[in-house]
Amino acid sequence: MEFLWTSFEIVGTIAFAISGALVGVSRRMDIFGMLVLALATAIGGGIVRDILVGHFPPNSLQTGFYVLLTLAVTIAVFMVYRSKQDHHMSTRWVRRIYLTADTIGLASFTVTGTSVGVYAYPQYPIFCMILGILTAVGGGMIRDVLAQRVPSVLREEVYALPAIIGSAVYYVFGYDGAWLYASYGSFITVFLIRTAAIRYEWSLPRVY
Amino acid sequence: MEFLWTSFEIVGTIAFAISGALVGVSRRMDIFGMLVLALATAIGGGIVRDILVGHFPPNSLQTGFYVLLTLAVTIAVFMVYRSKQDHHMSTRWVRRIYLTADTIGLASFTVTGTSVGVYAYPQYPIFCMILGILTAVGGGMIRDVLAQRVPSVLREEVYALPAIIGSAVYYVFGYDGAWLYASYGSFITVFLIRTAAIRYEWSLPRVY
Amino acid sequence: MEFLWTSFEIVGTIAFAISGALVGVSRRMDIFGMLVLALATAIGGGIVRDILVGHFPPNSLQTGFYVLLTLAVTIAVFMVYRSKQDHHMSTRWVRRIYLTADTIGLASFTVTGTSVGVYAYPQYPIFCMILGILTAVGGGMIRDVLAQRVPSVLREEVYALPAIIGSAVYYVFGYDGAWLYASYGSFITVFLIRTAAIRYEWSLPRVY
Repeated sequence: MEFLWTSFEIVGTIAFAISGALVGVSRRMDIFGMLVLALATAIGGGIVRDILVGHFPPNSLQTGFYVLLTLAVTIAVFMVYRSKQDHHMSTRWVRRIYLTADTIGLASFTVTGTSVGVYAYPQYPIFCMILGILTAVGGGMIRDVLAQRVPSVLREEVYALPAIIGSAVYYVFGYDGAWLYASYGSFITVFLIRTAAIRYEWSLPRVY
Repeated sequence: MEFLWTSFEIVGTIAFAISGALVGVSRRMDIFGMLVLALATAIGGGIVRDILVGHFPPNSLQTGFYVLLTLAVTIAVFMVYRSKQDHHMSTRWVRRIYLTADTIGLASFTVTGTSVGVYAYPQYPIFCMILGILTAVGGGMIRDVLAQRVPSVLREEVYALPAIIGSAVYYVFGYDGAWLYASYGSFITVFLIRTAAIRYEWSLPRVY
Repeated sequence: MEFLWTSFEIVGTIAFAISGALVGVSRRMDIFGMLVLALATAIGGGIVRDILVGHFPPNSLQTGFYVLLTLAVTIAVFMVYRSKQDHHMSTRWVRRIYLTADTIGLASFTVTGTSVGVYAYPQYPIFCMILGILTAVGGGMIRDVLAQRVPSVLREEVYALPAIIGSAVYYVFGYDGAWLYASYGSFITVFLIRTAAIRYEWSLPRVY
């Protein structure tokens, strides 16, 4: 179970590091700005999660592993991007990579966040779900606030919704100790809902 | 005393949920964006408070009651707003509701924030006041940063000032255990000062 | 050693309070807006640091000393600025004061932040460095987000880099208990690198 949790944490960190670094590229930042946004996205959500359960120092900062991983991913994004000559052609492709990485990060951190809640406070379902949702959307929110963008969670029609449903899925299975079903079920739920929402341009009701 | 505290926490949550949801409406967000802003406003300040005194998980997240309350308020605001046909006529009225709700939230959270400080650290008056002020203005700050507005606390001439005076009022009475005087005295102080400041357009000195 | 630490904390608080108050002036805020930005800058980084090591209430809020110090600095900046008649002439000079104060703050808080890490978690070098860096850049980030500016750490080419190198310097000396070398070595490193970077307009590689 420990191994499973760490796998999702690593996958989420890599995915969100890519999404953060790409936002840095799109803002024409230097490699350092890219790194700051990558760190905010990849590690921010986990820090929020660990603060809310009172776990200090936060898991993602303690050993430095996740920081160095994010650093490596940022350098890789920088190198790949630089090696391409024709940027204009690839804009649409870059956007697709960004959205896929962001969705994988969202799904992975829904799993790890809800899981921390179910482990420590199984008696509070809403709190477990909120932990999952905040872990999933928190890093992206910090990234967007720093980069002066309206956060995805406010801009995109269906962004937090998949994390909400995914965290509920995790709670239902995880409460009975079915970690494997909980983790993969939750991950796949989040991934499919958001991918479908982007693909078919789902939207939610609004006042005007 | 427990009952009194919970009453103010509930009143403040409802009031700030309204103010957050209305900012979402004014930005033409969907119902989900409204909910995120309502949650940030209604629960953000209390989370900041609980983190600063090292109380985990934060009170407003633990049971889910405040989250569901905010959800209900957001849906109510959405329904009421949708049922109105002529939006243009009501703009001024909406602004008045927004300001009143925001002022009630500011006053209520000044009370609950300072109260947590006086209970746990009566020997530190400045810390108690800061807890009250940050609980009162914190949620609105997070809301405004997410919605890309300059925070009220920087934009409005008299916003944090009532919270400062109100938290001092609370400390003076609350230190001697006069919770009832402290709570109502503080609430009324904040409410009257900000309402008067808006009504008579008070302003503070500036360099230019 | 206690005395040394407190000295750097005080110097950093004064320097960052000046930088925050000056951003408030440049945004034509009233004295209250200046105070909020000064507090965010001067105290924000230390609060982030104390939260990450689970130290509650945060050191800079506990006694109120740092809050009152920041208040005094803000009033002083306000008075000095008002007493000057010709603002247009002094713009360049103000910018120089702002950058110097910001650099002193950055250097001081790199020292106090890394020091807290080395004291509590000497076995985690990366965590110690991150504590130093976040303490140094955290307050300015909160200030910039509140004032709706793109954070210096993303905008300026060489901003976090001196803090990274300075925190490494501190760790190397501090790990062996050479607090004096660690503190002054780290401070001077950060100060010189950023000053040189501003003076000679150093820049880092970027994708475009």
